[in-house]
Amino acid sequence: MFYVIGLGLCDEKDITIRGLEAIKGSSRVYLEAYTSILMVPKERLEAFYGKELILADRDMVETESDEILRRAATEDVSLLVVGDPFGATTHTDIILRARAQGIPTRVIHNASIMNAVGACGLQLYSFGQTVSLVFFTESWRPDSFYDRVRENAELGMHTLVLLDIKVKEQSEENLVRGRKIYEPPRYMSIPTAVSQLLEVEESRKAGILAPDTTLAIAVSRIGGGEGNERIVAGTLAQLCDAPRETFGEPLHSLVIVGKRLHHLEAAYTASYAIDGTKWKEIAQNVYGCNFD
Amino acid sequence: MFYVIGLGLCDEKDITIRGLEAIKGSSRVYLEAYTSILMVPKERLEAFYGKELILADRDMVETESDEILRRAATEDVSLLVVGDPFGATTHTDIILRARAQGIPTRVIHNASIMNAVGACGLQLYSFGQTVSLVFFTESWRPDSFYDRVRENAELGMHTLVLLDIKVKEQSEENLVRGRKIYEPPRYMSIPTAVSQLLEVEESRKAGILAPDTTLAIAVSRIGGGEGNERIVAGTLAQLCDAPRETFGEPLHSLVIVGKRLHHLEAAYTASYAIDGTKWKEIAQNVYGCNFD
Repeated sequence: MFYVIGLGLCDEKDITIRGLEAIKGSSRVYLEAYTSILMVPKERLEAFYGKELILADRDMVETESDEILRRAATEDVSLLVVGDPFGATTHTDIILRARAQGIPTRVIHNASIMNAVGACGLQLYSFGQTVSLVFFTESWRPDSFYDRVRENAELGMHTLVLLDIKVKEQSEENLVRGRKIYEPPRYMSIPTAVSQLLEVEESRKAGILAPDTTLAIAVSRIGGGEGNERIVAGTLAQLCDAPRETFGEPLHSLVIVGKRLHHLEAAYTASYAIDGTKWKEIAQNVYGCNFD
Repeated sequence: MFYVIGLGLCDEKDITIRGLEAIKGSSRVYLEAYTSILMVPKERLEAFYGKELILADRDMVETESDEILRRAATEDVSLLVVGDPFGATTHTDIILRARAQGIPTRVIHNASIMNAVGACGLQLYSFGQTVSLVFFTESWRPDSFYDRVRENAELGMHTLVLLDIKVKEQSEENLVRGRKIYEPPRYMSIPTAVSQLLEVEESRKAGILAPDTTLAIAVSRIGGGEGNERIVAGTLAQLCDAPRETFGEPLHSLVIVGKRLHHLEAAYTASYAIDGTKWKEIAQNVYGCNFD
């Protein structure tokens, strides 16, 4: 059996009982480490699972799937994935290959940011399509995400914005010299994300994002529990100007609040606001919420 | 501490390690049984958790929250919820009450249909807002969901349609006589859902849903593993005409495929199609997928 197992969002204890049983029964266990990053090191997972983990970067999952699937028809092999196996990056490819080889497969689901974002107090029902925001560089400032945000905004839907993570990056020099030396991972911060959004609004001018009247919610380390998880609500300008400590360690995601904001959503999220009075004022005057 | 714990989608083994530890340490454990239904009886959960579960219907969670939160400031109390605590029904209300009483709270996330639907092979990124479909009666045929489906469709996004579940229903006679005798639970089937969708299309005529050229995917018992989970893809007409056994036992959900369907999504989902050739033909001719 080939298992693809979601690890959930935070640490070694977020795996399900079914997932843990599959790991314990597997002869090889791969850990995919690309799209997202758990809050704990690999060694802590290994100690908890009582298994050695083979690190598989995204390339390996795509190009060496035969090695991963080796003997999976007769033994159990597991591939561990942060969040849910069908979250931001789907694992349809390797599942198709397994099936083509007649290997039975089983997906073990878990929480991902795509559903756990509901913790911010906005209804999952009212989210439109999800967008990803990549780090802008001098020469590469892709802005097609803006069309998606606009489509959601025009319908009044909320938008979950997933922020870029750079792992296994090489400096230009190391790349040119063929040295496999990697830079430390980089995670996009909330202020960077907001300033990129506002930069694109500035050039595209559809009037979707306004620094002082568009509400947004920054969610950090969702599922990490009190003292770790952080949810911070504010206008785009407030979030952009907030000191970095406001949001704490990665990972961060951002929700742009849609105009269909319900007054109960507004009231709940106000408890996370940098300035609750202003939050409610904008919810009332700009979003049309009626708190009476 | 007051814990709100997601149980995931199928059975007792879908809980996370963190969730199980919280249950074991709790002096009282409530099981919310309203919005959705696990595939196993309460007794099996109790045996596995080694704890007695107190059934809490939705009413009780809303009206007797003080009883649920009793002594949670000094002891651990858990509320178990099928799926994720912020899935279809959010539990913001009782969390707010707990906070108002100074009770520390922790949400333990899990998979819900809102993210596990990715198992059907469509990208979660490309889903628009989610809709709920209730059983039509002689006199009550609410069709506001159609506006949401249309909004998604016009943007080419997929729509997850959650199907009605009726639990604790009373017959009119029992209701009139005040007898608390409940009818057996009813779950909306895929053919019923599709025929309701088509009935509303018939009257609203926006040309969003066509029996022979709109693609849809029925997902049943997602997370249940091979032999239990079932994913069936077809035109609306094919799904409507399929014998009930095609979909098996509840729970069922339906995905209406949006026009932005990617050719890789179309190729993957074709493996679930009632008629794979027709599926690809429509994907190509109506949805504009290019398989070359």
